[in-house]
Amino acid sequence: MTHASNPAAGDGYFTEANSAEVVIARHREAENERLKTVMDSAVRHLHAFVKEVEPTNAEWMRVIDFLTATGHVTNDWRQEWILLSDILGVSMLVDAIDNRKPRGATETTVLGPFHVSNAPRYENGQDICLDGKGEKLLVTGRVVDTEGRPIAGAMLDVWQANDEGFYDVQQQGVQPDMNLRGVFTADETGAFWFRSVKPRFYPIPADGPVGQLLGALGRHPYRPAHIHFIVAAPGFETVTTHLFTPDCPYLHTDAVFGVKADLIADFRTVDDPAKADELGFPNPFTQVDWTFVLARTAGEGHA
Amino acid sequence: MTHASNPAAGDGYFTEANSAEVVIARHREAENERLKTVMDSAVRHLHAFVKEVEPTNAEWMRVIDFLTATGHVTNDWRQEWILLSDILGVSMLVDAIDNRKPRGATETTVLGPFHVSNAPRYENGQDICLDGKGEKLLVTGRVVDTEGRPIAGAMLDVWQANDEGFYDVQQQGVQPDMNLRGVFTADETGAFWFRSVKPRFYPIPADGPVGQLLGALGRHPYRPAHIHFIVAAPGFETVTTHLFTPDCPYLHTDAVFGVKADLIADFRTVDDPAKADELGFPNPFTQVDWTFVLARTAGEGHA
Ligand SMILES: [Fe+2]
Ligand SMILES: [Fe+2]
Repeated sequence: MTHASNPAAGDGYFTEANSAEVVIARHREAENERLKTVMDSAVRHLHAFVKEVEPTNAEWMRVIDFLTATGHVTNDWRQEWILLSDILGVSMLVDAIDNRKPRGATETTVLGPFHVSNAPRYENGQDICLDGKGEKLLVTGRVVDTEGRPIAGAMLDVWQANDEGFYDVQQQGVQPDMNLRGVFTADETGAFWFRSVKPRFYPIPADGPVGQLLGALGRHPYRPAHIHFIVAAPGFETVTTHLFTPDCPYLHTDAVFGVKADLIADFRTVDDPAKADELGFPNPFTQVDWTFVLARTAGEGHA
Repeated sequence: MTHASNPAAGDGYFTEANSAEVVIARHREAENERLKTVMDSAVRHLHAFVKEVEPTNAEWMRVIDFLTATGHVTNDWRQEWILLSDILGVSMLVDAIDNRKPRGATETTVLGPFHVSNAPRYENGQDICLDGKGEKLLVTGRVVDTEGRPIAGAMLDVWQANDEGFYDVQQQGVQPDMNLRGVFTADETGAFWFRSVKPRFYPIPADGPVGQLLGALGRHPYRPAHIHFIVAAPGFETVTTHLFTPDCPYLHTDAVFGVKADLIADFRTVDDPAKADELGFPNPFTQVDWTFVLARTAGEGHA
């Protein structure tokens, strides 16, 4: 027989025209509504993408090869999927959606891959630069609520690259363990202060499939110089953020889109021989001063 | 200083509102226009998806975990990314887009993971069932052009599961090597014929992340019973397709959406003791007869 005589013709099978609807119709028995919502949307947008770009089978196999390579370079120490999410702007988009804070609270940005959970706890004033290398920096600031009242006892988890653009965990055996990271506690006026060195810009890991994609897109892999902070206090939304230096050449082209105008700080030169002497710094030195504003957790009243 | 005094505020950094545009603006120096077109579209649809479902950071990390697991189960023998593309209907969509044939040419469907490139070449009439197990089947047919003229010498690469739903490559040491596969050549009238057994439905590999996703979506992993064909002849577009049996319980719910109404064949019962005796089959037996219609390659004129 020829296929023209087939009795089942037109019986709702998959076609180019109805493709997303046919797939979504299979989600009726999904184990929860949220999964169904997410997968319905994923299928609609994925099919719309394919219909828009009309890939050949050979092009689609290149996509499969890219996914395969990205999967294979990922291990316990290297998360190429997060890198991919980062360079496509998705990590920052999810961060924005998940952190719609009351007006006036400090903006959030990406966590990044270099946080460690067991950084040393320090007294205010401690120098977190353990190898003495780099250009001296004094970091000072306060943690306050959205009405400007101090949050005594707020915790500040701080980490940064050295002035060659590497984190300690990237240079084990070269930098001291726990170099340029530590956890501080705001005093009764909400103030904190510590000594460090100026951070430098650095590339995200660019020797894998994501780096190749960046290269093919004509994009560089650099992140502008920054200091990471996680600021937390009971009753307040935790803020995961950066302070950016204002003079970095990559400030407008962060490979992971992490820069927000409100996170660019004034790293100013201080000419104060007595203060420099007290800090053990050469004069003049660099200081950055910053106020972190935390939003109260939903449902918690004022103090 | 507080962030309110930052001079760079509003300078075109990434925001929830402008997210896709900011990312796409970085594609200006892409090494080729096609990559730019594909990545622009991918970013727009990906951001539209994220904005529609508004994932929490925790939900996005579950997506990252799914991608990580899918990457890690993929190896030289197991292609979980193709499986994912299959169950989302993307493989069939790309196939449809890349195979818009002249009206009347045989429809295409997915290649699947069980094709081997070195199947034995057989004379017409050969029995491809090497272990004698299963319900006997006679396959007959012709290969013709869109005007119905025979294509002498057309090659037919055939493979199928046994009547327990397994391909030889899935049961090495259980089935004989090259069981239920072979390459045939159409005669001067375009005719081909061979002996086999009725194929059975089977599950796609369901013990990985894609199988877990199918389960969470309330979907089964089965493909309806089918015989694979790749039909090729010089001057014609190669057709990669299946013939489906008409009575399979999974015909309307193929896990990979591969069924097309025009590919469902009539597997009919033949009561012909003389023919059965000639074939070495019990009487009655099952026969399927099919005409493959190939489209001329673009640019090639009529013979
Ligand atoms: Fe960083
Ligand atoms: Fe198959």
